[in-house]
Amino acid sequence: MVYQDTLSFSTSKSGQMQDITGQIQDLVSRSGVKRGMVNIFNVGSTAAVGAIEFEPGLQEDLPRELNRIFPPGAHYDHEKAWHDGNGHSHLQATLMGPSLTVPVSEGELVLGTWQQIFHMECDIKPRQRTVLVTVYGE
Amino acid sequence: MVYQDTLSFSTSKSGQMQDITGQIQDLVSRSGVKRGMVNIFNVGSTAAVGAIEFEPGLQEDLPRELNRIFPPGAHYDHEKAWHDGNGHSHLQATLMGPSLTVPVSEGELVLGTWQQIFHMECDIKPRQRTVLVTVYGE
Amino acid sequence: MVYQDTLSFSTSKSGQMQDITGQIQDLVSRSGVKRGMVNIFNVGSTAAVGAIEFEPGLQEDLPRELNRIFPPGAHYDHEKAWHDGNGHSHLQATLMGPSLTVPVSEGELVLGTWQQIFHMECDIKPRQRTVLVTVYGE
Repeated sequence: MVYQDTLSFSTSKSGQMQDITGQIQDLVSRSGVKRGMVNIFNVGSTAAVGAIEFEPGLQEDLPRELNRIFPPGAHYDHEKAWHDGNGHSHLQATLMGPSLTVPVSEGELVLGTWQQIFHMECDIKPRQRTVLVTVYGE
Repeated sequence: MVYQDTLSFSTSKSGQMQDITGQIQDLVSRSGVKRGMVNIFNVGSTAAVGAIEFEPGLQEDLPRELNRIFPPGAHYDHEKAWHDGNGHSHLQATLMGPSLTVPVSEGELVLGTWQQIFHMECDIKPRQRTVLVTVYGE
Repeated sequence: MVYQDTLSFSTSKSGQMQDITGQIQDLVSRSGVKRGMVNIFNVGSTAAVGAIEFEPGLQEDLPRELNRIFPPGAHYDHEKAWHDGNGHSHLQATLMGPSLTVPVSEGELVLGTWQQIFHMECDIKPRQRTVLVTVYGE
């Protein structure tokens, strides 16, 4: 059984993290899949998905540290093509990755108590985002 | 066909890496899946799974380098909530990721000769760990 | 439905990125899967796969920045075993990861306009590479 649906939402700024666990669980429930997996995929090259303890401190820490690893305003050859100042956004998003697969058991996401699924805006301005969710199993 | 099982084991210290390839292969064999994939997922937000050449040198290199990227003892806003000194553990685990998907062919994991599946403890103390393994295919 | 096939190709140098989106789409089309997912897996521990806007600037930026994070020529305990000078290659490949899962809808990869699937050589010399592609769905 394969069930596919889309999450659409806006982001407000660079580094914004959103907890999408509840929305993913809703889609899993709607799919009727009891045992299997769900893949969460950010469509586009300047945002990422991942898993984290979704508390306010880490929502500050992760974007700040990614900005330390790939700083905004540093030299990126990407600027030669686009001059849009988001070379670091691409690198952050590629390193974090656009795709996360999470197991489903008894119709529920299998996650730790302090483990949530997040979407992270890496681009330098608000964006409209599409996340494709594919549930498969039986 | 979907087959799901759990690995449970203890970790002894921060940065400990364990080769879980054999245990994953055992579950794949038990599943009866000949062609498909297996997803390996660490339940919890301060450990990771991945693929590496599992030799003693890299078992020193990877945790040491992750401690260089996200140093223990640096400032993390995560500490405001928990004061438990593991802000870096969360960031390391989120960057490495909790989820790995590996193909299965003729009933065997498809891996390079020097490519193994590892679990890595990123937390600052020994933990009891659960890894959910989902095999799917035909 | 599970369809599996292999991409084989040569790489020419460390840091070389190749756009394999077209080849992956061909395999998806050949599989007949209309809705589901495709997993792309690099067999071997010193290369990676991922998603990026595949333009010339970022093809310079990503390898250069990974060389900054894990520099060639730095101390790696991996050298004790092999003396082959590619400790950084292993760490770069493990951090980027060998596995990417992308959704398929209406028989097409679901990707952003500026989002492509790449293979990256992290080793220090040309290599023959195998990427296993598994398409599943209905």
